[in-house]
Amino acid sequence: MIIKLKNNVLPSEIEEIKNHLISKGFGIHESIGKSTVIIGVIGDTTIIDPNSLYAYEFVDTVLRVQEPFKKVNRKFKPEDTVVDVGGVKIGGKNIVIMGGPCAVESNQQIDEITPMVIEAGAKILRGGAYKPRTSPYSFQGLEQEGLEILNRAKNKYGIPVVSEIMNIEDIDDFVKNVDLIQVGARNMQNFALLKELGKINKPILLKRGIANTIEEWLMSAEYILAGGNTNVILCERGIRTFETSTRNTLDISAIPVIKKLSHLPIVIDPSHAAGRWEYIESLSLAAIAAGADGLIIEVHQNPEIALSDGQQSLKPHKFSSLIAKCRKVAEAIDRTLEEFD
Amino acid sequence: MIIKLKNNVLPSEIEEIKNHLISKGFGIHESIGKSTVIIGVIGDTTIIDPNSLYAYEFVDTVLRVQEPFKKVNRKFKPEDTVVDVGGVKIGGKNIVIMGGPCAVESNQQIDEITPMVIEAGAKILRGGAYKPRTSPYSFQGLEQEGLEILNRAKNKYGIPVVSEIMNIEDIDDFVKNVDLIQVGARNMQNFALLKELGKINKPILLKRGIANTIEEWLMSAEYILAGGNTNVILCERGIRTFETSTRNTLDISAIPVIKKLSHLPIVIDPSHAAGRWEYIESLSLAAIAAGADGLIIEVHQNPEIALSDGQQSLKPHKFSSLIAKCRKVAEAIDRTLEEFD
Amino acid sequence: MIIKLKNNVLPSEIEEIKNHLISKGFGIHESIGKSTVIIGVIGDTTIIDPNSLYAYEFVDTVLRVQEPFKKVNRKFKPEDTVVDVGGVKIGGKNIVIMGGPCAVESNQQIDEITPMVIEAGAKILRGGAYKPRTSPYSFQGLEQEGLEILNRAKNKYGIPVVSEIMNIEDIDDFVKNVDLIQVGARNMQNFALLKELGKINKPILLKRGIANTIEEWLMSAEYILAGGNTNVILCERGIRTFETSTRNTLDISAIPVIKKLSHLPIVIDPSHAAGRWEYIESLSLAAIAAGADGLIIEVHQNPEIALSDGQQSLKPHKFSSLIAKCRKVAEAIDRTLEEFD
Amino acid sequence: MIIKLKNNVLPSEIEEIKNHLISKGFGIHESIGKSTVIIGVIGDTTIIDPNSLYAYEFVDTVLRVQEPFKKVNRKFKPEDTVVDVGGVKIGGKNIVIMGGPCAVESNQQIDEITPMVIEAGAKILRGGAYKPRTSPYSFQGLEQEGLEILNRAKNKYGIPVVSEIMNIEDIDDFVKNVDLIQVGARNMQNFALLKELGKINKPILLKRGIANTIEEWLMSAEYILAGGNTNVILCERGIRTFETSTRNTLDISAIPVIKKLSHLPIVIDPSHAAGRWEYIESLSLAAIAAGADGLIIEVHQNPEIALSDGQQSLKPHKFSSLIAKCRKVAEAIDRTLEEFD
Repeated sequence: MIIKLKNNVLPSEIEEIKNHLISKGFGIHESIGKSTVIIGVIGDTTIIDPNSLYAYEFVDTVLRVQEPFKKVNRKFKPEDTVVDVGGVKIGGKNIVIMGGPCAVESNQQIDEITPMVIEAGAKILRGGAYKPRTSPYSFQGLEQEGLEILNRAKNKYGIPVVSEIMNIEDIDDFVKNVDLIQVGARNMQNFALLKELGKINKPILLKRGIANTIEEWLMSAEYILAGGNTNVILCERGIRTFETSTRNTLDISAIPVIKKLSHLPIVIDPSHAAGRWEYIESLSLAAIAAGADGLIIEVHQNPEIALSDGQQSLKPHKFSSLIAKCRKVAEAIDRTLEEFD
Repeated sequence: MIIKLKNNVLPSEIEEIKNHLISKGFGIHESIGKSTVIIGVIGDTTIIDPNSLYAYEFVDTVLRVQEPFKKVNRKFKPEDTVVDVGGVKIGGKNIVIMGGPCAVESNQQIDEITPMVIEAGAKILRGGAYKPRTSPYSFQGLEQEGLEILNRAKNKYGIPVVSEIMNIEDIDDFVKNVDLIQVGARNMQNFALLKELGKINKPILLKRGIANTIEEWLMSAEYILAGGNTNVILCERGIRTFETSTRNTLDISAIPVIKKLSHLPIVIDPSHAAGRWEYIESLSLAAIAAGADGLIIEVHQNPEIALSDGQQSLKPHKFSSLIAKCRKVAEAIDRTLEEFD
Repeated sequence: MIIKLKNNVLPSEIEEIKNHLISKGFGIHESIGKSTVIIGVIGDTTIIDPNSLYAYEFVDTVLRVQEPFKKVNRKFKPEDTVVDVGGVKIGGKNIVIMGGPCAVESNQQIDEITPMVIEAGAKILRGGAYKPRTSPYSFQGLEQEGLEILNRAKNKYGIPVVSEIMNIEDIDDFVKNVDLIQVGARNMQNFALLKELGKINKPILLKRGIANTIEEWLMSAEYILAGGNTNVILCERGIRTFETSTRNTLDISAIPVIKKLSHLPIVIDPSHAAGRWEYIESLSLAAIAAGADGLIIEVHQNPEIALSDGQQSLKPHKFSSLIAKCRKVAEAIDRTLEEFD
Repeated sequence: MIIKLKNNVLPSEIEEIKNHLISKGFGIHESIGKSTVIIGVIGDTTIIDPNSLYAYEFVDTVLRVQEPFKKVNRKFKPEDTVVDVGGVKIGGKNIVIMGGPCAVESNQQIDEITPMVIEAGAKILRGGAYKPRTSPYSFQGLEQEGLEILNRAKNKYGIPVVSEIMNIEDIDDFVKNVDLIQVGARNMQNFALLKELGKINKPILLKRGIANTIEEWLMSAEYILAGGNTNVILCERGIRTFETSTRNTLDISAIPVIKKLSHLPIVIDPSHAAGRWEYIESLSLAAIAAGADGLIIEVHQNPEIALSDGQQSLKPHKFSSLIAKCRKVAEAIDRTLEEFD
C-alpha cells in the first residue's frame, strides 16, 4: 500500500500515521521528495481497508498494490480448481450445461421436464424452491416441498440438482437434498450466509450481484474459502446498467478477467442476463467461446404459463438445438461438451 | 396493462392470450387497428409480472399503466406517514438527525460519544453491532454484545437507538434492545428477512440497495407493510454509478420522487453516499433543502483509529457545526430542527 | 402511443389534450373506465417526443408502442443490409476483421504494420489520424498527414482503410482518402456531423457512445439514413458501467438485440471495450460466436512505445493467432472468415 | 506515478522500462523488496497516460499519485475564479439564476417570456438556437435566426444571454450574439470544439457529459484553459444511471467535489437532471444548499405547446416562487441572491 500525504503535512503528522501503521505490525518505507511525502506500507495489507486512512486529514491519496483477496487468488494457487458436483466435474476441459425450470412447480412438471433436459444434453438439473421475488404478491416458491421434489428427481433420473438458498436455517435441508447450493445475486453480500456456507463442504454456486464489481465478488468467494469450503463455482448473470433492451447487461469480459485473477471455475447464466428467450442462444455461444466452464439456462415445457420467468425460459426443443450448437463452438476452441451417457 | 401484439399475430393466438388473462380473472379491452392489435387488461395487475407475457412469442410490447405497489402508494394513502421511534417522530414538520459511530466498539466508546452526539443536537443514536464487511478479514462487529451496549446507552442517556440487522434469528434481540431496526442496502431484497419484519411492529429503517431502482425499493417496503408493519422509514444512501470520486452517488432526486409516489418518510445517509468526511456537510444541507425528513450521520471521537469507516466519520465538533447549519436551512424551508431538551 | 390521465382529470382537460393531438394530425382512440381515462394516439408518433406530454399536469403516464426509428428498423426492411467497403462486403455470411494501429504515427510505421496485418488475415486497415484524447497534453494525431499516409498504404497494399472523423470540415479529405469513415463514441450524438455524413455515400462506421442506449444509437444511425446514406455499419465498443477491471463493459447482448431490431451490420471493437491486450482474444471469439459481422482490433508492432493505447494493442503474432481461432469459431456457427488472397 | 512489476520480472525488463521512462525525461526511484519491485516515477506525469504502461507485459499495476489536470486545479490556483458574464459575476458570494425556454421559438415568444424571467429574479436569459435532438424528425432549432432573436432581447431588455454551440464554424456568430457560450453534455469531449473555444475570451458554460467522470470533465475544462481562455463555468446536469424515475441522476456531490479539486465556479441545471417540472424546485434548493454558484432552469409560458422539453419547463409563476425560496436558502448559508435592479 502506498500513501501520499498532502504537501503541507507536518513532521508530527508523518510520525502519527507511521506509528499507527507500525502498531498494526506493518513495515514502513518512507520517501520524502521536494514536495511530496510518500509512505510505502509493507506486510499483509489485506487486513486493512485502504480508505480508512483517509480519516487522517493530511492524507492525500491511498493506493493499493495488492489484491485484497488471498485464497481465491490465482497467485495463491496457479492451477485451475475443478469442482465435483455429484460426479459432474466443473472447471476442467469439459463444459457443463445446467438446465431446468426457474421454479419447481410440481412433481408432474419436474417429471416432464427432467427427461427432456437430460435428452438435450444437460448434466445438472436446476429448479428454484425458494424464489426471491421483487413483489410480495408474486409466487414465492414451493419452499421445502420444492427441495424434496428435486431430490426425488435426482434419485429417479440420476442427475445432480442445483437450487437457490436464501436462509441460514435452510442449510441442512439443502445439504440433504441438492448437489450444488446456489447463492443468488441478491445474497452475494449476505455475509452471515456466506460464513455458514464456508463451514460445509457441499459445492456452492456463487452468483455475482447485479451491482457488484468482480473484486467484491471474489471477496464474497473468499468468505466461503476462508471458512474452509473450497468448492466454489462463480456465476456471472448480468449486471445492472443504463441499457434497458435486456434485463441486465451480461458482462462477458468477466470470463477472461476471472480466469486471470482466480483459479475458480466460472459459469454463465444467459437467462437472467438477457431476460428474454430470444437472446439466450447468442449469449450462450458467446460465453463458451469466451472461455466459460459452463452454462445455467432456464427451460420450461410451457413458458407461457410458467409461474415465474416464462419470458426468459427456452422451450425444450430450442434448448436441445442450442446445446448442439454449443458443442460445435466448444470443439472450435478445443474443449468438449460430452454426450450424456 | 396494455399488450401490443406483433403484426403477423394469428386470430387463434389472440384468443390464446385473452383466455389466459380471463382465466386469471382479468377483464379484456381489445382494440384491433389496421396493422396493430392492442389488448387492454383490466383489473388488479399488480399480481402479474408484465414481463412474463413476453413468453408468448407473438407479443411485441407489454406496458404497465399501474404502479406495482399498493400499501406504500400515496394514491392509496394520501397523507404523510409519521413514524414514532421511541418518542421521536419522523415524517412530520420536524427534521430528525441521527448520529453515532459506524460500529459499536466498546462501552467506553459509547459513553464518550453519546453525550457529544446529544449535545450536538441529534435525537437518535446510531451504532453498528453486526457489520457487513466486504472482506472476511475486516472487523465484523461486536454482535450481540454491541446490541447490549446500545441498550445500556439508551437507558442511561434517554436517547432512542438504531442498529442494523442481518439475520432473521436476531429479530428478538433487536426488538428487545433497539428502537429502530435498520435493514442495510445489501439486504434490501432479502425478502425472507423483510417478511419477518412485517410481522413485528418495531419501526424499520429500510435502506435503498446500491443498485436498486426507487420502484424496487418501494416494493421491498411493500413486503413489510403487506405483513402488517406500517412503521417504515426509507433511507437513501447513494447508488452505484461510474463516478469514483465519491463512494456512491447520492440520488438527491429520490427525495421528491418518493414524496410524490409514497406517503412514507425518507431520510438521507450522507456518510455512506460520500464515503469521505469532507463532503458530508454539503450533502446534509442539500438533503434538508430537498425535503428529507431526517439524516443519519456517522460520528466518531477519533476517526483515525475507528474500527470501521473512519474516513467518512465526522468528529463531534464538526457534527455540531453541521447541525447548526442544518437548522438554518430547515428554517429557510419552513421546517424545524428542534433543540434537544 | 398510449396516454393515461390522472384520476381527477377534468372533462375540459381531456378535450384540451385531444385537440392538441388532433391539431398535430393524429387520430384519437379514447377509453374511459371507472377510474381511468386512457387515450390511444393513432398515426406516425415518431414525430412526437412522448415525454413532452408530461407538460400537461393531468397526464399520469405516457407509453410508446412504436419504435422511434424507421429507416434502420428491420420492420421497415427485413433483409440484412450488406455494406461494400472498397470491395470488402460487411453484413453477409463472411466475417470481416479490421486491424491496425490506434494512431497513424509515420509512413514507416504503416509500411511495417500493414503487411503484417494483411498476412494475419485482416481485410481492412485501421489507423487514427485525428485522435480524441482526454488530455490536451496527449498526442493528438498526425491529422491530415495521417490521412495521406493511410491513402498511400491503401494504394500500395491494396487494402481498404478506415479512420475516425471529428469535424465537418474534414469530410472532403476523408472522402478522398479513406474507404470507411468512423464516427467515434464521443461523436455518436454530434448531430451536425451525422447530418452531413447523411449527404455523402461513403460507408460510415458508427460507434456506440459509452453511455448511449441501443435505441439512441439506432436514432443516430437514423440521422444518416434519413439524409440518404444507407451505408452504415454499427460498432459496439463497450459501455460505461461501475466495473473497473476493464476499460468499458462490452455489451455482447447488443449483437442479438441489433440483429432483431435493425437490418444494419454490426461489428465489435474488443480493444476499446477491454482496454487491455490480454482480454482481446476472449472477447473476439465471443463476438463472433454471438453473431457479429466483423471485428476491429488495434495492432501495433511495438505496443510499449505506441503513441496511444499501447496497453490494448496486440502484437502482430498474437493478432495472427487470434484470427486463426476466430476462423474456427466462425465455421462452427456456419459462417466464414475467408483467407486473404 | 508508481509502477508495480510482476513477481517474475527479469532484471533486463526492469532496465527496459526504466530506460523508457528516463528517455521521456522522468526521474526514477526504484524499490526492490523480497517479492516486489516498485518503480516511482518522478516529474510531471500529466504528460503520460498511466494505462499505456500496461503494454509492458511484466507490469502488474500502475498507480497515479498526481491529478492529470493542471490549470483547473485548485492546487495550482487556490482562490475561487469569478467569471464575468456581461456584467453578471458567477463564482462569488452571490448566486446567479439563469432562466428561459429550452428553444428559441420566435421573437414573440422571447418578448413574452423575457420580462417574466427578469421579473422573477433571473439575471441571465437562456434559449437554445441550435438544438441537439435524439431524433432527426424533431424540431432542430431556429439556428442563426435564434441567435439573432436572443441578441435582440439582450439589447432590448438589458439581460445577458446564454445559448448552446454545436459547431466550430458558428463560433463567430456566438461571440457576436451571446454573452455565455454553452457546450452541451454531448459535446463535452468534442475536443476540436474545445480547442477553438480556448482561443477566444468569451465565457464558456461547460456541461458535464452524461457518462463522464468529474476528472474527465475537468480535463475538458483544461483543454479550454490550456488554450488561454480562463472564463469557464462548469455545469452539472445529471448523469446516466440505472434509475428511470428521473431523466438523469443529478450528481449533487459534484458540487463539493469540484469545490475541492478546482477553482472554477459550478452551476446546476435541475431541468435536464430531473426531466420533469415537478422535481425542479426540490433539486434547485438542494443545489444552493450544497454550495452551487448558480442555477440554469428552463421556463416556458406555455410548456404544453413548447417545441421542445415542455415536460421539464416551469411556468413563470412557479419559477418566480422557486426563486423566492432559493433566496431564503441562500441566506441560510450566508450567500445572497440579489434582487434584480
